[in-house]
Amino acid sequence: MSNPSYFVVSREQHESLVSAAYQHRGYGKEESDAAARMCSEASWHGIRTHNALKALHLDELFGSGNGGCVPGAEIEVRDSRFPAVQSWNANRKLGQAVACEAIETCIRLAEEYGSGTVAIDNAFHYLWGGGYVMDAAKRGYIAYTNCTSTLAEVVPFGGKFPTLGTNPHSWGFPTMDAVGYPVVIDWATSEIAMGKVEQYKREGKKLEAPFGVDENGNPTDDPFAVKALLPFGRHKGYGLGLLNELYGGAIGGSPPTLRGRAEKAEGTGEKTTSAFYFQIVHPDALHVDDFSNGRSQAENITAVVQDVLGHGNENCMLPGTIEANNAKLSVEANGLLFTEAEIKGFIELAEECGIEASDWSMDSLPTFSS
Amino acid sequence: MSNPSYFVVSREQHESLVSAAYQHRGYGKEESDAAARMCSEASWHGIRTHNALKALHLDELFGSGNGGCVPGAEIEVRDSRFPAVQSWNANRKLGQAVACEAIETCIRLAEEYGSGTVAIDNAFHYLWGGGYVMDAAKRGYIAYTNCTSTLAEVVPFGGKFPTLGTNPHSWGFPTMDAVGYPVVIDWATSEIAMGKVEQYKREGKKLEAPFGVDENGNPTDDPFAVKALLPFGRHKGYGLGLLNELYGGAIGGSPPTLRGRAEKAEGTGEKTTSAFYFQIVHPDALHVDDFSNGRSQAENITAVVQDVLGHGNENCMLPGTIEANNAKLSVEANGLLFTEAEIKGFIELAEECGIEASDWSMDSLPTFSS
Repeated sequence: MSNPSYFVVSREQHESLVSAAYQHRGYGKEESDAAARMCSEASWHGIRTHNALKALHLDELFGSGNGGCVPGAEIEVRDSRFPAVQSWNANRKLGQAVACEAIETCIRLAEEYGSGTVAIDNAFHYLWGGGYVMDAAKRGYIAYTNCTSTLAEVVPFGGKFPTLGTNPHSWGFPTMDAVGYPVVIDWATSEIAMGKVEQYKREGKKLEAPFGVDENGNPTDDPFAVKALLPFGRHKGYGLGLLNELYGGAIGGSPPTLRGRAEKAEGTGEKTTSAFYFQIVHPDALHVDDFSNGRSQAENITAVVQDVLGHGNENCMLPGTIEANNAKLSVEANGLLFTEAEIKGFIELAEECGIEASDWSMDSLPTFSS
Repeated sequence: MSNPSYFVVSREQHESLVSAAYQHRGYGKEESDAAARMCSEASWHGIRTHNALKALHLDELFGSGNGGCVPGAEIEVRDSRFPAVQSWNANRKLGQAVACEAIETCIRLAEEYGSGTVAIDNAFHYLWGGGYVMDAAKRGYIAYTNCTSTLAEVVPFGGKFPTLGTNPHSWGFPTMDAVGYPVVIDWATSEIAMGKVEQYKREGKKLEAPFGVDENGNPTDDPFAVKALLPFGRHKGYGLGLLNELYGGAIGGSPPTLRGRAEKAEGTGEKTTSAFYFQIVHPDALHVDDFSNGRSQAENITAVVQDVLGHGNENCMLPGTIEANNAKLSVEANGLLFTEAEIKGFIELAEECGIEASDWSMDSLPTFSS
């Protein structure tokens, strides 16, 4: 098979195996299906870093395999005097299932109050924040989420010890009329991911720039010297990463250096869980119906986007373009695209779980070249 | 007078002159007082870029002096089915007065619904976004604002023509118990301000890094070659700057390259105004009362902040530290600190407006050295 060729797997076939693998670990059907669906969404949009194999690997390291996540846990909604904001105790329920439910609740609240917010304590990593806000934005809403990442790997601006997660922020904006897909702004607040540093080590390469710090807190581009990551954009990315820690602290998270580190937290009475923050705002609530030249709101957003990408900027991408282009390929291929190594991973996964997966044989799967 | 010595002016004396100067331009007393109070707040916290002299200069260039702002304008609140989100037509009322009122409304809504949001169309630059969220955070709320800046000066990531404002985001977080002041994250989405580029030109210096682009869109550190600014942190800052344009478009703003450019917009039927977005979230709405080791929410936030700034990171600053330290100096001096050049500016301002300002004589003002 010559590159760049992929094997094509239908969403149904993929979700069937992934849900079965979650259920094999003790998760209930509903939460397993939610997790499997989000894995499909990630692969559909080309997010290889959050595909099912990675998701299940993380579950093993930090989740059900390590006490970070509890199969079959139930969400408790706190009684509150605030009707447009809910706070939930996730009781370490599977992150993707919790996040999907939070988005539905935020949408329901936003339909009633104009905005809907759900803050979640005792949570386990939801993986691909962009997926939840993308889903809501496709349905016409302005969506936002942040969470505290499992491990503190990032130093504060000017610091030397990692006390901040790679803490992502994700925004989804309904721009389907303007460009055919939602703008999705979704990134970690570190310059790069620790996984990238490991990759550069394996490849024996320097980082593109001094994106990490060594043991003395000095910036370095040597992946072998990197002890922690720098926040992106100096003090600005630091502020954004810190923000998630502050939300996390307000919601109920413990000090960040204990997060995801059960061995370190043992006997301290502290949590090792993450916190989530979700918010949906209804776009109809934001305007005074005074768009210029008789435009509708959607037409006005289109005019703004066209102006931003005009004047010689026609080759610029929007945040979300890459994901949208990957989705187009998935449409064209009529399924999810996986490499040979990934297909092998799925077959091994099926074997581990004792699941029959003859339909994953590489001889029988269709291939696709873009 | 040896450096670093400042003249000390009481808030009352300062606000009296500044409000009179706004009223001299036709603004009503209430809106002038609001603007003067925000100028005092900026100077109290050492924000020299948004002091009263700059504010009045901007009003002359883009505001009442140029049709961007209408003295005595009234805010119209749109009827809406969404109780927790309001949309306002500011009718080009003075930005600071509108912003102060928006924060009060957001707080009132947050007390009732858990969150309160106000979106504002036909707005004129509110100047120091950090001031509004700082005020709300000091009062115990989580506050956020963004706005579209008056001029498009920033290129999209990979672009060559400036189609984005320097579009700031400002967050205020109630951390008084943790550190004695609120965390205030408040910055433009460009690498630097255009004012800084002008300063480097005057000083004949190169920029610290290629923070601008030349006429072909190539990054440059030569201030004389800079035609537009780069977003900070590459695609990440671009996403953040774009976000304000999308909010602006949803609220009612016209294409960004026309903003603040009356001559270019003439005859197009398009607006040249900015849009504001404000939001307050009540911290009591965010938790499930499950803080570790019996801590209160404030104590939990304190534990998080101490962890972030521990482990060898003790010399790191928090966003908001500089402003808090400046405020300490103002407390010590018992007034606002101005340089000799600034005092001269105030005296000229008084003369221009025909206002008696004998109390601004440098012989009579106390001085302060830090």
